[in-house]
Amino acid sequence: MKKHFKALSFDVFGTVVDWRSSIIAEGKQLNAQWGWGLNWEDFADRWRELYQPSMEEVRTGRRDWVILDTLHRESLLQLLQEFGCEGVSEDRIDHINRMWHRLKPWPDVVEGMERLRKNYILATLSNGNVALLVNMAKFSGLPWDAVLGAEVAQSFKPMPEAYRTTTRMLGLAPEECMMVAAHNQDLQAASRLGFQTAFVSRPLEYGPEQKTDLEAQGDYNIVADDFIHLAQQLYC
Amino acid sequence: MKKHFKALSFDVFGTVVDWRSSIIAEGKQLNAQWGWGLNWEDFADRWRELYQPSMEEVRTGRRDWVILDTLHRESLLQLLQEFGCEGVSEDRIDHINRMWHRLKPWPDVVEGMERLRKNYILATLSNGNVALLVNMAKFSGLPWDAVLGAEVAQSFKPMPEAYRTTTRMLGLAPEECMMVAAHNQDLQAASRLGFQTAFVSRPLEYGPEQKTDLEAQGDYNIVADDFIHLAQQLYC
Repeated sequence: MKKHFKALSFDVFGTVVDWRSSIIAEGKQLNAQWGWGLNWEDFADRWRELYQPSMEEVRTGRRDWVILDTLHRESLLQLLQEFGCEGVSEDRIDHINRMWHRLKPWPDVVEGMERLRKNYILATLSNGNVALLVNMAKFSGLPWDAVLGAEVAQSFKPMPEAYRTTTRMLGLAPEECMMVAAHNQDLQAASRLGFQTAFVSRPLEYGPEQKTDLEAQGDYNIVADDFIHLAQQLYC
Repeated sequence: MKKHFKALSFDVFGTVVDWRSSIIAEGKQLNAQWGWGLNWEDFADRWRELYQPSMEEVRTGRRDWVILDTLHRESLLQLLQEFGCEGVSEDRIDHINRMWHRLKPWPDVVEGMERLRKNYILATLSNGNVALLVNMAKFSGLPWDAVLGAEVAQSFKPMPEAYRTTTRMLGLAPEECMMVAAHNQDLQAASRLGFQTAFVSRPLEYGPEQKTDLEAQGDYNIVADDFIHLAQQLYC
């Protein structure tokens, strides 16, 4: 059962936006524009595979704080080499890296958020940096009340500081906030800190072969099929 | 002349919201509700007089970082004593302190912001803490793209770090951002760091007897009568 709470904090990549389809679609346009022949399905998957290991360097303290844009760019340089793309201009590298600023939401997201925001504060609690999230919101019409998460905490999820800084900046106790995510690990970390939790299933996040996070694996306050279903369960 | 820029960063107290009239109006309601006889004109003016000295303790390093809600509350306790209010409950003290979360915008603000946000990122660059600004935006319908400023920088304006952290988090150079304020000191500090600047006159911020900031005192990119006039000059 849900208790009274004031804010919903959202994971973004995969939960709010469909990063994989967005990157593939934009990549295919670039293939046509630039005369490239990249396999963007593979490229998107590999890029995302490098995501957790790159953050792990920072989480463990082996590396000082850097924003996700920087990690994305380092992974991109590695992958361009891996995929045999040579001599790509700095402008094109920047343009490709900023695909993450132009990700598109799942079809239920904007309507669901518009309904939820009438009753609750909606905040990002993402590993994305502020500029990435602000540009994405502007591009895709996501009505955030606050853009918070890893960068303002200088700590990547699932480190506790990422969650704690977000609620502290909202002036709330963890139990006054409900974490919304399509990933069990994220919700379990938030739950351990006292957050309420909502699992939203995104069975196509990793494409048609997805094997993980197909089901809620925890005693969450809410389990929903999408953001509209979440809004309904919260009487919005 | 203005150059190309991507974001507008706004001072909030006085520039976006009419703190003095808001506090007086809500205070008079409390007088009626609670049977108090406080002079809220004097109370609001005294509260704001303690604002700069309280932040100065932090700016000089004599005191560790604290958010504005904390400084407001300390000033409030001092003033309740000064005005002869004794034995006020914690709940009422909190309620009065959160008047700053419920300030109302000047009449031109929401329309002006709605026009500006079609072409630009709109961010707070305020000494208010995130929760205060998020709650105020929710209460008054202010469509921010990002809530930044002193708290995320752990530094109060006009310290350079408050401005620099805001543009860094937006992924922008200072010259890609235009600071909007009704206060010359704020704009001069931003201008020294490379921001573009817009002065918006708010001749009634401090009430009918206001003597300061009646005119633009600097070579600003834009001087405007209100936010609609600002939007017009930016072709929004």
